[in-house]
Amino acid sequence: MSQELLDFDVIILGSGPAGLQAAVHAARAKATVAVLGRMERSSLFKAHVENYCCMDTTLKGVDILEQGQRQAEKFGARFFSMDVVSMNRDEKGRFIIALESGEVLSAWAIILAMGISRNRLNVPGEKELLGKGVSYCVECDANFFRGETVIVVGDESAACSGALHLLLVADAVHLVYSDLKVDDRLRYQVEKSGIHLHPGSKVKAIMGTDGVTGVLLEDGQVIEGRGVFIELGAKGALELATKLGISLDPATMKYIETTKKQETNVQGVYAAGDICGPPWQMAKAVGEGCVAGMEAANYAKHERSKNT
Amino acid sequence: MSQELLDFDVIILGSGPAGLQAAVHAARAKATVAVLGRMERSSLFKAHVENYCCMDTTLKGVDILEQGQRQAEKFGARFFSMDVVSMNRDEKGRFIIALESGEVLSAWAIILAMGISRNRLNVPGEKELLGKGVSYCVECDANFFRGETVIVVGDESAACSGALHLLLVADAVHLVYSDLKVDDRLRYQVEKSGIHLHPGSKVKAIMGTDGVTGVLLEDGQVIEGRGVFIELGAKGALELATKLGISLDPATMKYIETTKKQETNVQGVYAAGDICGPPWQMAKAVGEGCVAGMEAANYAKHERSKNT
Ligand SMILES: Cc1cc2nc3c(=O)[nH]c(=O)nc-3n(C[C@H](O)[C@H](O)[C@H](O)COP(=O)(O)OP(=O)(O)OC[C@H]3O[C@@H](n4cnc5c(N)ncnc54)[C@H](O)[C@@H]3O)c2cc1C
Ligand SMILES: Cc1cc2nc3c(=O)[nH]c(=O)nc-3n(C[C@H](O)[C@H](O)[C@H](O)COP(=O)(O)OP(=O)(O)OC[C@H]3O[C@@H](n4cnc5c(N)ncnc54)[C@H](O)[C@@H]3O)c2cc1C
Repeated sequence: MSQELLDFDVIILGSGPAGLQAAVHAARAKATVAVLGRMERSSLFKAHVENYCCMDTTLKGVDILEQGQRQAEKFGARFFSMDVVSMNRDEKGRFIIALESGEVLSAWAIILAMGISRNRLNVPGEKELLGKGVSYCVECDANFFRGETVIVVGDESAACSGALHLLLVADAVHLVYSDLKVDDRLRYQVEKSGIHLHPGSKVKAIMGTDGVTGVLLEDGQVIEGRGVFIELGAKGALELATKLGISLDPATMKYIETTKKQETNVQGVYAAGDICGPPWQMAKAVGEGCVAGMEAANYAKHERSKNT
Repeated sequence: MSQELLDFDVIILGSGPAGLQAAVHAARAKATVAVLGRMERSSLFKAHVENYCCMDTTLKGVDILEQGQRQAEKFGARFFSMDVVSMNRDEKGRFIIALESGEVLSAWAIILAMGISRNRLNVPGEKELLGKGVSYCVECDANFFRGETVIVVGDESAACSGALHLLLVADAVHLVYSDLKVDDRLRYQVEKSGIHLHPGSKVKAIMGTDGVTGVLLEDGQVIEGRGVFIELGAKGALELATKLGISLDPATMKYIETTKKQETNVQGVYAAGDICGPPWQMAKAVGEGCVAGMEAANYAKHERSKNT
């Protein structure tokens, strides 16, 4: 399959307030900018915001985000309303970013603005069996299940791309979902793979005492397996980030650590917004986005000129 | 003269976007909050903002600021549209803050959000004689002029309170201004003091070669003196801050250094916005204001409960 490689100065992962503000500032600094991610997955989407200076307090999250997108587009940013499924770096140091559609983009600098996901299933056994077969990170834990049967739970790109990845190591992969919400190409890949599909299904409980033995579905069916991957939403920010060697805040090991310039420990990678830790507030997200956007644009333009 | 001491949990110095956002977040965290400073002195007042997520881009600075004030007032913040002329700390660690009106406020925590002032006169001799008689800081340099004649230039609270302070050390103090824009009480104090007033006057040049010898006014008059204090606008943020022992960013010695929680090196003192250094952007100001507001509210409530 032939692939067009779309090249940018700065790619922003996330279209919440942090990503939007970063896009505005990077584009105004004359960088070419792409913004990725589904807006309707922003924490703000369904919120009603009263505490963001100095905005009319009758606006809804969705309207705020749409206004932000129009603003960023006006300055030249390009939007791809799609999840990122993998991130790598080429020999020149450019970031290579694959979308669920199969499109591949490249950039000299990236900004991680994927927010936090509150991705629990909230079913019996989930907490008890965490680390004993229950996992929230395919990239981290797939190798523990070599030759075993595993169950992936989720409707979106994280579950689909996770299940495809697990096919390479596990003996059998089950995907439990109610209704797939992914790009056609990813759906097609999943349907044609050897994954056992359980559409219209919901997990009622995770079974096992010392270790996972399977899942119980709401219709009473049991699927046996040694691993359960809970992969709700888009591919977890931390899952993507740790692959690039990005350090987390040592106090929590949950958020990405940055300098005041929003630099991570990896050159060319910036982060902004909820992904950098609390307070989880729109004002903080845009503040960090502004700084990250300006810094990333400068860095990218410098790298590009060195390499051409 | 009897003085009412108005007590708050948090006092915010500055009513630009950093101060407004801090006020919203501190008040929502159930702290009692006062916001000080003239809104029309905010850098944003005459700006036209297009790059702040996710706001309608046809709004003018003044409208944005007024909306922010209404928002903060709705959550309970109280506004005093006046400059701070001095800051101290009492034996309990409370901050004691004097306004140009003579009113005195106290608080357990303060947030410095006074922005940056671009306070040059831009006249011949100003640059050349800097440090040789030309000063921008009465608090810092007054003592060099013990027994001398000094000239203070400016229309607002910084010039008036600076001139009053200089009366205590200098032999004679001249105040050159076009039209005083200060609270009645400060005006009265200045008029009844021994300061030599030069209303309706403008400085054309600062005279001297190895050191200041005087100033030339636009009407041709010369005022002789060994020191010229350029005190435009409100009392400079750094002038107020250094009195509390607050550290500046060592790289520039111009901006207030803070942690990521917007703490300065002095317990109970937070800072946010342009005063903390570039980029000078509304988005960054509100981001820092949000964090400062939440942190200051927590700190203040804790201190108050320890002390009661
Ligand atoms: C119910 C609720 C109410 C709230 N109310 C307020 C409020 O009143 N005031 C306030 O200030 N804050 C409020 N918040 C918090 C606020 O929404 C967040 O602080 C803010 O949205 C954070 O912005 P962000 O850009 O960091 O992340 P988000 O807005 O969460 O955006 C994350 C983005 O990353 C994208 N993404 C994730 N994974 C991937 C991937 N693999 N590939 C590509 N893109 C990806 C998502 O699609 C989304 O576009 C509220 C939150 C909730 C949940
Ligand atoms: C012409 C112009 C255009 C701009 N355009 C943009 C733009 O398009 N987008 C953007 O993001 N940014 C823009 N900026 C920058 C933006 O205005 C600032 O980054 C922002 O206002 C900083 O907010 P702040 O709250 O830190 O300081 P300010 O908004 O400057 O507010 C400082 C406050 O402190 C008060 N104060 C000062 N001294 C004292 C004292 N002694 N006592 C009490 N109060 C005091 C003042 O009265 C004022 O209320 C522009 C700036 C200028 C000058």
